[in-house]
Amino acid sequence: MNCFELAKMTWEEVEASLEKVRLAIIPVGAHEQHGPHMVESCDAVLAEKMAVKLGERLFPYVLIAPTVNMGVSLHHMNFPGTISLKPTTLIALLKDMVSSLYHHGIRQFLFLNSHGGNQSTLDVAVNMIKEEMDVELFYAKTTSSAKKAINKNVKSTLFGHSCEREVSEAFYLAPELIRIEKLQKGDIQEAGRWRQLRPGCALQGFYHYEEMTANGCIGDAQLANYEKGRQIVEEALDTLSSELIKVLKIEEDSIIRSNR
Amino acid sequence: MNCFELAKMTWEEVEASLEKVRLAIIPVGAHEQHGPHMVESCDAVLAEKMAVKLGERLFPYVLIAPTVNMGVSLHHMNFPGTISLKPTTLIALLKDMVSSLYHHGIRQFLFLNSHGGNQSTLDVAVNMIKEEMDVELFYAKTTSSAKKAINKNVKSTLFGHSCEREVSEAFYLAPELIRIEKLQKGDIQEAGRWRQLRPGCALQGFYHYEEMTANGCIGDAQLANYEKGRQIVEEALDTLSSELIKVLKIEEDSIIRSNR
Amino acid sequence: MNCFELAKMTWEEVEASLEKVRLAIIPVGAHEQHGPHMVESCDAVLAEKMAVKLGERLFPYVLIAPTVNMGVSLHHMNFPGTISLKPTTLIALLKDMVSSLYHHGIRQFLFLNSHGGNQSTLDVAVNMIKEEMDVELFYAKTTSSAKKAINKNVKSTLFGHSCEREVSEAFYLAPELIRIEKLQKGDIQEAGRWRQLRPGCALQGFYHYEEMTANGCIGDAQLANYEKGRQIVEEALDTLSSELIKVLKIEEDSIIRSNR
Amino acid sequence: MNCFELAKMTWEEVEASLEKVRLAIIPVGAHEQHGPHMVESCDAVLAEKMAVKLGERLFPYVLIAPTVNMGVSLHHMNFPGTISLKPTTLIALLKDMVSSLYHHGIRQFLFLNSHGGNQSTLDVAVNMIKEEMDVELFYAKTTSSAKKAINKNVKSTLFGHSCEREVSEAFYLAPELIRIEKLQKGDIQEAGRWRQLRPGCALQGFYHYEEMTANGCIGDAQLANYEKGRQIVEEALDTLSSELIKVLKIEEDSIIRSNR
Amino acid sequence: MNCFELAKMTWEEVEASLEKVRLAIIPVGAHEQHGPHMVESCDAVLAEKMAVKLGERLFPYVLIAPTVNMGVSLHHMNFPGTISLKPTTLIALLKDMVSSLYHHGIRQFLFLNSHGGNQSTLDVAVNMIKEEMDVELFYAKTTSSAKKAINKNVKSTLFGHSCEREVSEAFYLAPELIRIEKLQKGDIQEAGRWRQLRPGCALQGFYHYEEMTANGCIGDAQLANYEKGRQIVEEALDTLSSELIKVLKIEEDSIIRSNR
Amino acid sequence: MNCFELAKMTWEEVEASLEKVRLAIIPVGAHEQHGPHMVESCDAVLAEKMAVKLGERLFPYVLIAPTVNMGVSLHHMNFPGTISLKPTTLIALLKDMVSSLYHHGIRQFLFLNSHGGNQSTLDVAVNMIKEEMDVELFYAKTTSSAKKAINKNVKSTLFGHSCEREVSEAFYLAPELIRIEKLQKGDIQEAGRWRQLRPGCALQGFYHYEEMTANGCIGDAQLANYEKGRQIVEEALDTLSSELIKVLKIEEDSIIRSNR
Repeated sequence: MNCFELAKMTWEEVEASLEKVRLAIIPVGAHEQHGPHMVESCDAVLAEKMAVKLGERLFPYVLIAPTVNMGVSLHHMNFPGTISLKPTTLIALLKDMVSSLYHHGIRQFLFLNSHGGNQSTLDVAVNMIKEEMDVELFYAKTTSSAKKAINKNVKSTLFGHSCEREVSEAFYLAPELIRIEKLQKGDIQEAGRWRQLRPGCALQGFYHYEEMTANGCIGDAQLANYEKGRQIVEEALDTLSSELIKVLKIEEDSIIRSNR
Repeated sequence: MNCFELAKMTWEEVEASLEKVRLAIIPVGAHEQHGPHMVESCDAVLAEKMAVKLGERLFPYVLIAPTVNMGVSLHHMNFPGTISLKPTTLIALLKDMVSSLYHHGIRQFLFLNSHGGNQSTLDVAVNMIKEEMDVELFYAKTTSSAKKAINKNVKSTLFGHSCEREVSEAFYLAPELIRIEKLQKGDIQEAGRWRQLRPGCALQGFYHYEEMTANGCIGDAQLANYEKGRQIVEEALDTLSSELIKVLKIEEDSIIRSNR
Repeated sequence: MNCFELAKMTWEEVEASLEKVRLAIIPVGAHEQHGPHMVESCDAVLAEKMAVKLGERLFPYVLIAPTVNMGVSLHHMNFPGTISLKPTTLIALLKDMVSSLYHHGIRQFLFLNSHGGNQSTLDVAVNMIKEEMDVELFYAKTTSSAKKAINKNVKSTLFGHSCEREVSEAFYLAPELIRIEKLQKGDIQEAGRWRQLRPGCALQGFYHYEEMTANGCIGDAQLANYEKGRQIVEEALDTLSSELIKVLKIEEDSIIRSNR
Repeated sequence: MNCFELAKMTWEEVEASLEKVRLAIIPVGAHEQHGPHMVESCDAVLAEKMAVKLGERLFPYVLIAPTVNMGVSLHHMNFPGTISLKPTTLIALLKDMVSSLYHHGIRQFLFLNSHGGNQSTLDVAVNMIKEEMDVELFYAKTTSSAKKAINKNVKSTLFGHSCEREVSEAFYLAPELIRIEKLQKGDIQEAGRWRQLRPGCALQGFYHYEEMTANGCIGDAQLANYEKGRQIVEEALDTLSSELIKVLKIEEDSIIRSNR
Repeated sequence: MNCFELAKMTWEEVEASLEKVRLAIIPVGAHEQHGPHMVESCDAVLAEKMAVKLGERLFPYVLIAPTVNMGVSLHHMNFPGTISLKPTTLIALLKDMVSSLYHHGIRQFLFLNSHGGNQSTLDVAVNMIKEEMDVELFYAKTTSSAKKAINKNVKSTLFGHSCEREVSEAFYLAPELIRIEKLQKGDIQEAGRWRQLRPGCALQGFYHYEEMTANGCIGDAQLANYEKGRQIVEEALDTLSSELIKVLKIEEDSIIRSNR
Repeated sequence: MNCFELAKMTWEEVEASLEKVRLAIIPVGAHEQHGPHMVESCDAVLAEKMAVKLGERLFPYVLIAPTVNMGVSLHHMNFPGTISLKPTTLIALLKDMVSSLYHHGIRQFLFLNSHGGNQSTLDVAVNMIKEEMDVELFYAKTTSSAKKAINKNVKSTLFGHSCEREVSEAFYLAPELIRIEKLQKGDIQEAGRWRQLRPGCALQGFYHYEEMTANGCIGDAQLANYEKGRQIVEEALDTLSSELIKVLKIEEDSIIRSNR
């Protein structure tokens, strides 16, 4: 065993792991449309894969909790198959998970999130759980810290959903998510409020995803490939693991010796 | 494609499937200790496997929703690794799922549940959702309708959790859940309130699982095997699919022709 | 006084009783249609009568709380007069009751329930209250433990609601609930989903009671009589009191000496 | 039948009654200490008795719903036996009742309340239910409109809880609530914040009842008698029924002819 | 500084003040129509002004929290501009405020309320907060304790909303709230249920304000003036401060010496 | 009147304004420590001032709702005087406001927020309200769109709370918020987790503000002045009003003609 995945452990194995484990990583995904070329569990699968890779790098100090396989996806609801949780449902779920793992002795938590639409809810969850429990709570987007690799590899102007970047990550982490024969550019809508409301704009607000793209994806997924994905994922893992080492207050050597 | 698994479909594929699909099966599992010989995701995995097999039998009339991979497991909380949702959290989650799928046009739902501890919450969920939405709601234990096969195959007096029956099911459906070298009998506690509170007793009530069994399992898992599992699972699938055919108001032939 | 009924006691009497009392029995009924031959408070009255009789047998160790006179009856809502609580309302009510009695020093509780439609909600209530309070919680159907007497006396194929069994219980416990001149068989509907969804069937689910019976009752209430009721009730009381004696950890003699 | 009491009716009788019934009276009581000389169900019983008497006077235009037999009694919690609902629980219960009766066609409701501690919660309930349902909602204290009779008959300076007035009402309506041999004056505490916080004072606020009276009652219950109770109750019924006739928009004659 | 207004203090100043402060006054207003001659923030402004004046009289023992500038105003919703909070929202807000100030060491609280429609909700809030926190909670209408001055000065039969009394208070405390050129009598509706439901009547219940007055005010605001307002406000301040001195358990001299 | 401020209008004036008004601006602030040199209502006052200035620029098409004067400030709770709302409370409050204004005919809303700690909650609020009401919802930080002016004027490395930028804004908009004689640099803590968790870092998470700065402010407020504030505020107003003109779908000329 080179990663503590709760889903694959017996209680005796968990009990043994808890002698070393300090932090639980809770993978948080979504179940939502990802254009014509990715399946709807995309975010859930990528979050889980990233969590396990991160768990390997931080073995034996972290434990991977079960994956939260649905998230806040109201803006994708008009594409068939999308399932959206109310933010309060997601918060309740995370609170129950933290509370259960707290019972087993864990006091540090990372919500490792692959879906932009969950970020605000995670921030609120952190506030609400912190008010009630004496725990340390973090959250992170799976690969957004891979700034260099993204800068170098992603050529599309728009990216962030079933795009050049995400499809590349999937090529590296979970190619079964991709319908290669369907890879296509986002069918971006010229008109519409969405241009006013993108991240960084003066106004933020709710818009349905189909106002922005008729086929549900953005950027040019045809430019995606395994190598781009590898670079992005590995840089993100480097950054996240080095940040978590500080949070865990452990010596980097103690990890390398045991795991790599 | 011989089964509509939402997690493995793009939105265009979902859109096409909705021309035929009438009912969504929502697999409901748990994340909890399963003794020294089964991993903690056992119920989630078995519910999902059963749902897919049922989806194959009822193709193209049903769709398999993402799996609810945690459930109500308060009674297992004293075994390391168990995660328990509050019943209200599970109900909120199911309600959001039903509500999202309703938006896509589905009006019939089956919660296919592998964990006894969820049954009451599912019954309450059915009541609460029914009060608010015009849908048809069913729930079922994955294999408890396999009465003949269970009767014939299961020799242990006690069964129901990481037992002869459940391990057999796993041998057939998901052997990766089993630690074969660890298979053992339940370490049943002689004393204790649990004997008074088993299903069918005059009193029902809450007891911690360790009051009943020190190693977290019951019956004799060493008697489990693939063939027992096959018979139990297949009888359950026969029964469930024939019941669902009535509910779907379809002709059995229409399924056989398309799928088997 | 040979039974501690909270509704009939002053605070000074309650204070004195609490020197002996260990467990509170909370009678849980319903307010719902019971066919043309029983009044709608049937379940509330029977639960209360049973609770008092049980309280007499376990005097001075138990105390009878006020009766919960409405329950979860959504499936009966299409018959005039039925009142249904949301499951969350019933849980809130029980939690406030347990919490208040906890304040007075009681740590063991039995929800004595006469209405099948409440069972799941009671099970969920037990889970939710247990998670927040250090108490011992039990629930029981009023007479379902009278297996022998039911087997021997009840001739109707279907029973469970304003039926041969329930009317018999009322003849013995509260004949004022019965309109003798109206006693009739259930007007069972041949068609309909209900046959698929009865207890023990592969599928469970919600159906309106009028889908099963046009007059709101089942079985043949014309076969009901006082003696059948006496045998059923007394066997149930025997069973329940002997189970509670174990839970109370008292000597049976200590009761007999004080009360019978 | 000269009063439509839902608890005593079959569904067929309810169905027939609904041809005339316009308004439902929901009796709201409490379960709380009433000094050494009244039992704890006092408020619940008196509310129910008053409701029935009012129902007789307004027959066949009103229907008496099941009694809410517990209320908001936090201030009495330090006397053994008191059960207190959270205000949100009481509101949920009332909302479910109104909503169920709305389903049966009723659009006017009176919460007939015997317990001062419920008044604010009833007012809030009225606001909250009104925001969601198109109904007409009223609430009233059972006898506080009997201003003349109270003025004439009640000699105690303080009254309002297990006092000269309330015990008199019980002598008339339900003498079984009284421990005649225990009748006594309230054991009023000289010091304490309560004097500052009585109705009509500049400040309102929470105080425990034992801060005001050591034995849990106020005024001089020894001055209570049947005749005082009769005058108070009958004046209240006169007032309430004449107010309700206006609300019902019926002719007084139509009642007299049918009922008295 | 002769009054501790939290809104106007830095944290260092708050820290210093907390050496003396015992009680926090939370001004509670509303945002609702006040007829053609007062602006909609009327209640919020008057509550704040009263709180500050009271804070000056009780300096340095009390602290004025930020003003709750919206309240429960469902009955005014049909007049343009009114904003109404659900009672549960107002309670949540007050609970968060009390809880935050509790964290800073305060244990006594006064909700100083200028809007009749909030009274019941405040009473419920007091009950609900008291059940969870060990604090002392009071509430008061801003000027209703000025019984003599009101009796002497107010000539209108009806008063209580944008009336002779309230406009007078505004002349003294915040004349900018008044449209002097628009001062007018309430346009009282002869017919309608409201007469039955006024404070003190046998029935209480919900009615829309326009059922009572077509222009949204009552009484004769043309009779209002500064001097009437001064007398009412000053008597109320006298009464409230003398009541609070008892509650604070301080010597009156200690205030006079420091502040006046 | 050159700006529709709800707090300063009578219902008749609101009614007239609604002929033109399309969008409501809800100023959202906070009540929290702002270092030794700003008072705790800082965010509430600045949000309100910005809203009014924006309302003037968009007259007569927008209306300014009452200010939400407290927000989510858990991270500041260890500085005396801070009041923090639970995110769910803030969402409930905003929902009630939107719902009330919807009743008056408004369908577009901007939450104009001055406090970073509210942003996630506002995003969640937008999602939750959108799911229930057919409205258009936007939110914006008051001045963060003034990118050029901030870039040009702000010299401090860190800014964002009682800093060079915010104090400059206050010099221009509300100098009474500033204790000029107390202006000082943030007392930044070298050690601590906060450096890992700043906006843009790989990890996000909760930290108490005192972990970052001992005096509660950051950057160098001594560099703040009126002119910097003017440039920042005016650029933000330019940007926001031009964005809102698009959202309002009005001609810019129609505003200029009527207002400027």
